[in-house]
Amino acid sequence: MVRVGIIGQGYVASIFAIGLERIKLGELNYYGVPLANELPIKIEDIQIVTSYDVDKSKIGLPLSEVVKRYWEGHIPESLQEIYVKKGIHLRSLRNLPIEASGLEDEMPLKEAVEQLVSEWKDAKVEVILNVPTTESFVPFEKLENLEKAIKEDNRDRLTATQVYAYAAAQYAKEVGGAAFVNAIPTSIANDPAFVELAKESNLVIFGDDGATGATPLTADILGHLAQRNRHVLDIAQFNIGGNNDFLALTDKDRNKSKESTKSSIVEDILGYDAPHYIKPTGYLEPLGDKKFIAMHIEYISFNGARDELVVTGRINDSPALAGLLVDLARLGKIAIDRKEFGTVYPVNAFYMKNPGPKDARNIPRIIAYEKLREWVGLPPRYL
Amino acid sequence: MVRVGIIGQGYVASIFAIGLERIKLGELNYYGVPLANELPIKIEDIQIVTSYDVDKSKIGLPLSEVVKRYWEGHIPESLQEIYVKKGIHLRSLRNLPIEASGLEDEMPLKEAVEQLVSEWKDAKVEVILNVPTTESFVPFEKLENLEKAIKEDNRDRLTATQVYAYAAAQYAKEVGGAAFVNAIPTSIANDPAFVELAKESNLVIFGDDGATGATPLTADILGHLAQRNRHVLDIAQFNIGGNNDFLALTDKDRNKSKESTKSSIVEDILGYDAPHYIKPTGYLEPLGDKKFIAMHIEYISFNGARDELVVTGRINDSPALAGLLVDLARLGKIAIDRKEFGTVYPVNAFYMKNPGPKDARNIPRIIAYEKLREWVGLPPRYL
Amino acid sequence: MVRVGIIGQGYVASIFAIGLERIKLGELNYYGVPLANELPIKIEDIQIVTSYDVDKSKIGLPLSEVVKRYWEGHIPESLQEIYVKKGIHLRSLRNLPIEASGLEDEMPLKEAVEQLVSEWKDAKVEVILNVPTTESFVPFEKLENLEKAIKEDNRDRLTATQVYAYAAAQYAKEVGGAAFVNAIPTSIANDPAFVELAKESNLVIFGDDGATGATPLTADILGHLAQRNRHVLDIAQFNIGGNNDFLALTDKDRNKSKESTKSSIVEDILGYDAPHYIKPTGYLEPLGDKKFIAMHIEYISFNGARDELVVTGRINDSPALAGLLVDLARLGKIAIDRKEFGTVYPVNAFYMKNPGPKDARNIPRIIAYEKLREWVGLPPRYL
Amino acid sequence: MVRVGIIGQGYVASIFAIGLERIKLGELNYYGVPLANELPIKIEDIQIVTSYDVDKSKIGLPLSEVVKRYWEGHIPESLQEIYVKKGIHLRSLRNLPIEASGLEDEMPLKEAVEQLVSEWKDAKVEVILNVPTTESFVPFEKLENLEKAIKEDNRDRLTATQVYAYAAAQYAKEVGGAAFVNAIPTSIANDPAFVELAKESNLVIFGDDGATGATPLTADILGHLAQRNRHVLDIAQFNIGGNNDFLALTDKDRNKSKESTKSSIVEDILGYDAPHYIKPTGYLEPLGDKKFIAMHIEYISFNGARDELVVTGRINDSPALAGLLVDLARLGKIAIDRKEFGTVYPVNAFYMKNPGPKDARNIPRIIAYEKLREWVGLPPRYL
Ligand SMILES: NC(=O)c1ccc[n+]([C@@H]2O[C@H](COP(=O)([O-])OP(=O)(O)OC[C@H]3O[C@@H](n4cnc5c(N)ncnc54)[C@H](O)[C@@H]3O)[C@@H](O)[C@H]2O)c1
Ligand SMILES: NC(=O)c1ccc[n+]([C@@H]2O[C@H](COP(=O)([O-])OP(=O)(O)OC[C@H]3O[C@@H](n4cnc5c(N)ncnc54)[C@H](O)[C@@H]3O)[C@@H](O)[C@H]2O)c1
Ligand SMILES: NC(=O)c1ccc[n+]([C@@H]2O[C@H](COP(=O)([O-])OP(=O)(O)OC[C@H]3O[C@@H](n4cnc5c(N)ncnc54)[C@H](O)[C@@H]3O)[C@@H](O)[C@H]2O)c1
Ligand SMILES: NC(=O)c1ccc[n+]([C@@H]2O[C@H](COP(=O)([O-])OP(=O)(O)OC[C@H]3O[C@@H](n4cnc5c(N)ncnc54)[C@H](O)[C@@H]3O)[C@@H](O)[C@H]2O)c1
Ligand SMILES: [Mg+2]
Ligand SMILES: [Mg+2]
Ligand SMILES: [Mg+2]
Ligand SMILES: [Mg+2]
Repeated sequence: MVRVGIIGQGYVASIFAIGLERIKLGELNYYGVPLANELPIKIEDIQIVTSYDVDKSKIGLPLSEVVKRYWEGHIPESLQEIYVKKGIHLRSLRNLPIEASGLEDEMPLKEAVEQLVSEWKDAKVEVILNVPTTESFVPFEKLENLEKAIKEDNRDRLTATQVYAYAAAQYAKEVGGAAFVNAIPTSIANDPAFVELAKESNLVIFGDDGATGATPLTADILGHLAQRNRHVLDIAQFNIGGNNDFLALTDKDRNKSKESTKSSIVEDILGYDAPHYIKPTGYLEPLGDKKFIAMHIEYISFNGARDELVVTGRINDSPALAGLLVDLARLGKIAIDRKEFGTVYPVNAFYMKNPGPKDARNIPRIIAYEKLREWVGLPPRYL
Repeated sequence: MVRVGIIGQGYVASIFAIGLERIKLGELNYYGVPLANELPIKIEDIQIVTSYDVDKSKIGLPLSEVVKRYWEGHIPESLQEIYVKKGIHLRSLRNLPIEASGLEDEMPLKEAVEQLVSEWKDAKVEVILNVPTTESFVPFEKLENLEKAIKEDNRDRLTATQVYAYAAAQYAKEVGGAAFVNAIPTSIANDPAFVELAKESNLVIFGDDGATGATPLTADILGHLAQRNRHVLDIAQFNIGGNNDFLALTDKDRNKSKESTKSSIVEDILGYDAPHYIKPTGYLEPLGDKKFIAMHIEYISFNGARDELVVTGRINDSPALAGLLVDLARLGKIAIDRKEFGTVYPVNAFYMKNPGPKDARNIPRIIAYEKLREWVGLPPRYL
Repeated sequence: MVRVGIIGQGYVASIFAIGLERIKLGELNYYGVPLANELPIKIEDIQIVTSYDVDKSKIGLPLSEVVKRYWEGHIPESLQEIYVKKGIHLRSLRNLPIEASGLEDEMPLKEAVEQLVSEWKDAKVEVILNVPTTESFVPFEKLENLEKAIKEDNRDRLTATQVYAYAAAQYAKEVGGAAFVNAIPTSIANDPAFVELAKESNLVIFGDDGATGATPLTADILGHLAQRNRHVLDIAQFNIGGNNDFLALTDKDRNKSKESTKSSIVEDILGYDAPHYIKPTGYLEPLGDKKFIAMHIEYISFNGARDELVVTGRINDSPALAGLLVDLARLGKIAIDRKEFGTVYPVNAFYMKNPGPKDARNIPRIIAYEKLREWVGLPPRYL
Repeated sequence: MVRVGIIGQGYVASIFAIGLERIKLGELNYYGVPLANELPIKIEDIQIVTSYDVDKSKIGLPLSEVVKRYWEGHIPESLQEIYVKKGIHLRSLRNLPIEASGLEDEMPLKEAVEQLVSEWKDAKVEVILNVPTTESFVPFEKLENLEKAIKEDNRDRLTATQVYAYAAAQYAKEVGGAAFVNAIPTSIANDPAFVELAKESNLVIFGDDGATGATPLTADILGHLAQRNRHVLDIAQFNIGGNNDFLALTDKDRNKSKESTKSSIVEDILGYDAPHYIKPTGYLEPLGDKKFIAMHIEYISFNGARDELVVTGRINDSPALAGLLVDLARLGKIAIDRKEFGTVYPVNAFYMKNPGPKDARNIPRIIAYEKLREWVGLPPRYL
């Protein structure tokens, strides 16, 4: 059994909730869940116990109502019992056509943190899945700076995710263990301040930014080229979609956060910083959750020959991350049980665009997968 | 030092020869050679000592003349000293607009084999690189059947590659060790008859069919999907080119040979035989050596979502294999030195479309690369 | 009002029937019908009055039952009243996994023709839409040869479509006017024998081979390049699908018929025969009716620069032709009314891959469209 | 004979100059020049007589030196005799890594205009080809506003192109006729102020923004879809390149100019404003002048079927426009001879992204081409 709390009840979290319950009902297979039913903790053992949002039109509603906005099929009854609670806002929805409300509107951040911790105790949360809107952020680097910002109620310096992760650490300390899965670009697993805090607070951190879509595929294609010693001349990668995540990324500062997690693969994998243009490109409403990606790679092969690859695709954005969350919830619990506090590279390397800790590098995902299996204790698949 | 003999002085072998000599002259970097200069045997230590063909217009000419047909740049002087010898034909060029002549036109196959062995002794060949035109073939499975066919001069049953490999075994036995690198689809490393013969003759076999172009990339993309438990619905892969190899593959029986090595990846890597259409598709002269590939893959992700990937590319065909041969020549020598006779899966798994021995399976190339490094004794790159 | 008879109640004809009735019910807009509601005869005025097939499992069933195999939505009630009649077979389904039965199994061809004529009189058919399985055929060129083959019951020489077109002429002669729309590759509008027969029999012929998918798009892209005097070096065009039409095209002789109608655009539009590979490429069952197309075009621009275009797509095959049939049925009636017997180039040039008569050439469709409007009497759209 | 003056001796102008002289030398064919040698004025009759730039490193150099930066082949001797003169700058190169200098640094704009007019008289210029860096601009709409800005030396309000076009009008008035070909996005043919001025000054204006690359191709593809009444759901179009033009377009305001000319096709051709994302996307240096384009179009076909097209390409950017300029120079002379002062829609509709005058609309280029031929007096090609 894993007791899961959600932060950001949007597209990803809703598909996660629906898919999970449909699996329990036997309506759905395990496709899109990397480790399927191979883990000691079964998918059917995952239980969503609480959920947070700051969109006024969602707060207070049962999940069953919220997820309807993202799915036309039958909504599992089990989702009627979980209600969306009010979270911490801190500019998360700024510039978006959504009316927001956060706990910090009514109290200092420190008190808001205490309220979250107390609610999580009531709900007996074990793993917190963090999937709110992408933020513009500055890492803290030093734990003391983070603690100072909280103490001083510094709302300009802190993002919501940073406060949630801080609250998770307080909670873990009190209950003896918890996990915070950061599936968005904000540096948490990559911020030494948070990793240090996690270690001393019995918190497991996975992060940062769920690796779905073109980025991990690019990682593997670049690995493929590097292994043949083909010299990459340039990489252009576009992607455009029509969900709220893409709308949010039209904001320049949010876009920067995403660009930096996406681009980190190039030098890590090739060993040199091949010129590249990799960033969320635009918003086009009718595409909905099914983004269009296009990628161009040019490289030099033997005897100076110049080759070109183009990859295009139509990819459902949210299910890709939702499927990973089904693993991450269970892996979080496993890590707690093993008391591997701080952050866990073998998990991050496969599931995250920018795998923490800070100085860890990206490797081809195909390799990362085998390392993950080893960490989990599963037999190798191809190795 | 590795002393190399070539069979089939066509596009691939000519780019191999030119690139190799340009590297020696310092005109060219190591791009396209997977293991670059990491091996104990250096690229500069490879020496081409003999070459065979059955195209009348090539036999008797110095390499420097032949390679001109495939390269407009400066031709290294060193290629003036190697002359193309007459090989064994056996239908290799049937239906192609090329006048052919083979040793077997003048003598029984057994004698032709003896002549090859004697010439190889003179040249002190160590590694034979087999890159003639793709053949239509039937594997022997049992060594006795192979031996019977040779004894009975059964020209309908044997292909040129089978005879060359047989001769290589005779030669290896006599000189105490040699390697035969089969870079074309004919089953040699996948034919138990040849592997058994190799073991008892001090022959190293690498094979079959050099892994270049869309096939190994598909292997890695399928590995990528399989690791996320995405369910592949269908795979269509086209490729069209304008070199002689593509012209030869318009022949239905030759095409079958290629189709079978190309298709073997699907079930091996996915674990189920996803419906697929993977074969050399056509010949279009102006494309020259730069083939056009197009691939479509459709799969199911989490919550039943249906995704699509399309890969297209312009890829120089011959340099891709030529670069691999630069490694394979050196690895052949290393295997001889280690007395690893028979066939060597960790080498085949990375470099070959249909890695022998017969019951060995394809794995994602990104994994195969690390296994190869391990076999070679090199430190892991990403593992 | 137009009274329509269908030959070949497969995918295309079924989507035509469903779409038409859904439009009448107000369930569907006019998308995919080029002239929409601009014609004097309205879409709602089209009435399917009879249908023919030779698939034993379809003969005798009401359309409502047959179309279910191709459409999961609601089936309009109106389709319950039309029953599929037995047609002429003549090898149409050879090599396909379908049990066939034709009128000619029970009587000579001449009698079968008479039976069709008599049935059409009963049904008061005006326009016959010919969409059976693609045939391998030889044109007649001379009317006397055609008449001889019918008289001599020459079943090896004649294809089903040729017999249907012959019957249509007999019928038109007797009733004073009718139209035969040949949407498959068999030369009818391109066979002078049939055009001559049509002229003297009050028959309108439109043909040959409905222009849908990659071919008309290629025509326009080539027109675009030609108008900029870009010199096309090569064209490769692949398409693969999973419907019965693609299965039938895996048959070499049928494939040839299609290749020739598809390829005819290149020289017609460019003015020179640029090297090309354009043919139905393969069958892949899970693709269903949604084919995958891929096209590569290379050309020379100013100052010798070499450019490349790649087009890929997922296109629903049958709706594309079904939408054209909605126009063709009405245009057939208009041509009858105007007594334009023989064949009508301005219609063929837009709607057909190989527009008849025989010596007529392909032009960019964008131009053909304006000529069509002029012929119809509609105001120009862009001209 | 046409005497041509160039403004902006960059990539496009240099390929124009080289290609033109190579044609004169018989080194090059007419590929990429739409009307080839069909016009009464021959390509060989075009003579470059003067050139302007504001890049300090170009001013004062002979063309033969400048064009070397863009072409590795042999430089025609004839280019040694033309020297680059200093033009008007006005922020054109702001934010670019180029040191600039303009006539207005030394004198008021009015005087600079007079100097240009006097130099053009000396050079006996007939047609001015305007290809400087893309500008951020505001149209004048009313002639009096334009005249006021010049009089008041309003350097913030005016762009270089606006001043050049004003100078061209003064010049045309004095010499009795001249042409100004505006191949960049600044509204000149689309600005009623300039068209009015041109009419009263004997000036021919062609514009605005040369139609090359993905935009005119999109126009034809959209025309193709519209003619089949397919309903376009969304259009995403990316393009990225590595020349200075792409670098300049990373500037937000310049980008807007380009976006507006590129996007104007959608509503004009479809008849409704399908949601679209069409703009220059990014700069990636190693791509050089060979840009990568990617386009995704989704539409509804008959019976509600949803189709998708993807176009990708590698296209040489500058030769495409240079080839058009070879026509435009000659057409400019023809228009002067015919005294068609103001702007000429049948020319603009084919050659320009945003064809003037202001209220004129885009049509498919394939149609525009035939209208152009009609205007020129050439026989139709396909019509
Ligand atoms: N494939 C993927 O979809 C993918 C991959 C990697 C990362 N991500 C990240 O996952 C996140 C969620 O993506 P999505 O598509 O579900 O977006 P979404 O916009 O549909 O959902 C985000 C939800 O978070 C809520 N929210 C915003 N700020 C909040 C806060 N401070 N506290 C609580 N809730 C808050 C919003 O109201 C909304 O309901 C994004 O940051 C995205 O970058 C997604
Ligand atoms: N990327 C690649 O190019 C690639 C990848 C995998 C495998 N291969 C295989 O490599 C082989 C060579 O490809 P290529 O592009 O160089 O083709 P090619 O046609 O240019 O060269 C083949 C040469 O072999 C000669 N030949 C034919 N039969 C012979 C015989 N019996 N004995 C000696 N010489 C003979 C021919 O005359 C020709 O010179 C093909 O079988 C191809 O399938 C190539
Ligand atoms: N976009 C398109 O789908 C397209 C475009 C151009 C042409 N076409 C042509 O349209 C035809 C139909 O395509 P489809 O996808 O509907 O194929 P289909 O196989 O689904 O349908 C063909 C039908 O014709 C029947 N048939 C075969 N021989 C017959 C005969 N002699 N008499 C009467 N019926 C006969 C078959 O039993 C079947 O029901 C094909 O020839 C195809 O080449 C299709
Ligand atoms: N296919 C195409 O390349 C294409 C298509 C349509 C439009 N255009 C337009 O053509 C123009 C030129 O493109 P390019 O690729 O040659 O760019 P470029 O940057 O290579 O050349 C521009 C030249 O203009 C000069 N310049 C800048 N401001 C000037 C001024 N005020 N007066 C005189 N010279 C000035 C620059 O110094 C440079 O030499 C751009 O505005 C571009 O948007 C190009
Ligand atoms: Mg998302
Ligand atoms: Mg080859
Ligand atoms: Mg079809
Ligand atoms: Mg440009």
